[in-house]
Amino acid sequence: MKIVRFDRDGRGTWGIVEGSLVRVMGAGFKPSDETLPLADISLLPPCVPTKAVCVGLNYREHAAELSMEVPEEPVLFMKPPSSLCASGGVIRYPSQTQNLHYEAELAIVIGTQAKDVPESEAHKHILGYTCANDVTARDIQARDGQWVRAKSFDTFLPLGPCIETEFDPSNAVISLRLNGETCQHSTTADFIFPVSYLVSFVSQVMTLIPGDVILTGTPPGVGPMEKGDRVEVDIQGIGVLENVVG
Amino acid sequence: MKIVRFDRDGRGTWGIVEGSLVRVMGAGFKPSDETLPLADISLLPPCVPTKAVCVGLNYREHAAELSMEVPEEPVLFMKPPSSLCASGGVIRYPSQTQNLHYEAELAIVIGTQAKDVPESEAHKHILGYTCANDVTARDIQARDGQWVRAKSFDTFLPLGPCIETEFDPSNAVISLRLNGETCQHSTTADFIFPVSYLVSFVSQVMTLIPGDVILTGTPPGVGPMEKGDRVEVDIQGIGVLENVVG
Repeated sequence: MKIVRFDRDGRGTWGIVEGSLVRVMGAGFKPSDETLPLADISLLPPCVPTKAVCVGLNYREHAAELSMEVPEEPVLFMKPPSSLCASGGVIRYPSQTQNLHYEAELAIVIGTQAKDVPESEAHKHILGYTCANDVTARDIQARDGQWVRAKSFDTFLPLGPCIETEFDPSNAVISLRLNGETCQHSTTADFIFPVSYLVSFVSQVMTLIPGDVILTGTPPGVGPMEKGDRVEVDIQGIGVLENVVG
Repeated sequence: MKIVRFDRDGRGTWGIVEGSLVRVMGAGFKPSDETLPLADISLLPPCVPTKAVCVGLNYREHAAELSMEVPEEPVLFMKPPSSLCASGGVIRYPSQTQNLHYEAELAIVIGTQAKDVPESEAHKHILGYTCANDVTARDIQARDGQWVRAKSFDTFLPLGPCIETEFDPSNAVISLRLNGETCQHSTTADFIFPVSYLVSFVSQVMTLIPGDVILTGTPPGVGPMEKGDRVEVDIQGIGVLENVVG
């Protein structure tokens, strides 16, 4: 099932994708009789996180590329809800940076509250998965040492286009295209820390709330974006998160 | 004016402190006819932030103590809403750390949405100020390099007891007492970056939402807490944020 969220008279509304249509969901996430053409809706980020927890380095090949040792534990950072951006939205290039980078990532969407969850129970707390772009001002990241500012500007968390609830995260192809050219191409089979480990690990630090997201790190091939560029995060089985830089 | 938030039948309710009483506020933050004894209410964190943005090093004396140069720009990190803890609440000592530290801080509470605000306009977006304890697992902070995990465990953001709306942040005494003994004692006159600068700086990165907080850094004298300890952050003109470690 593919869940979307879209704008309707200024209000976030849920829907389920049925081919080229969207079934509008009513109160209590009950299906209504109404459908709308998918092409006509204005997408919002597919969930409403209280926090976006991100993992620093999680692809073996990326660690090798950076000549870094495989970490023993995930390194965490966060992006604020104010950095969310929908598929189709504009990533704004801040005046404070001269080196804006894309980072394609698989995002886990939490479905039920999770605290101190063992790995074996992690799947019960996952609603589904979506595509994310961990947009980063690389020059600020290097200067600050701490990564939060460089990754927290408004529109630096494109998320979408939908939540796929029947996705298998063990071996999915993840790609990033910049103006149609493939810049990142890998598979989640290269994860250092699998999804169940990440949910368990994060939940032992902080209570995860429904709608919260965990970004699972980026594969090799990160690089700069310029104003006017079109950037697509494509995860097999989920869809394409598409944004322009403005 | 001192604004408190308290639990009433499981719901967060606002009130205004009037001596030893609390005036219950109704819809639209209008005063009701009802008052309750201050001693009888169960405090909640005095605001509901979508994010808590924190500043790394902001007291000249603390920079000197650490033999660190005064930074040119504030270094930012974040704590999630799930780390909030009320005055009177228990700071939980996680099993993952052996070195849990207190950090007394003045917190700015945002009153109106702020984006790209100049320093001269910053005061218009500030509702008031409260006390914060930037609880930190010092060993995890050192190991991770990134500070987010070490500072984001549940209960690691005690906030309160109230929001003081008529507070002058230019020269206020800030103290921390551990089991009654003073461990931190300074004044906000020692700030490297004043409040107006911080609001402006953060608002140029991310949109600040009403209820969001900015923690303004800690003075010299940070140190460890043990289970059973009583820790108080006391800011002249605001009040005392008191917690026990459990």
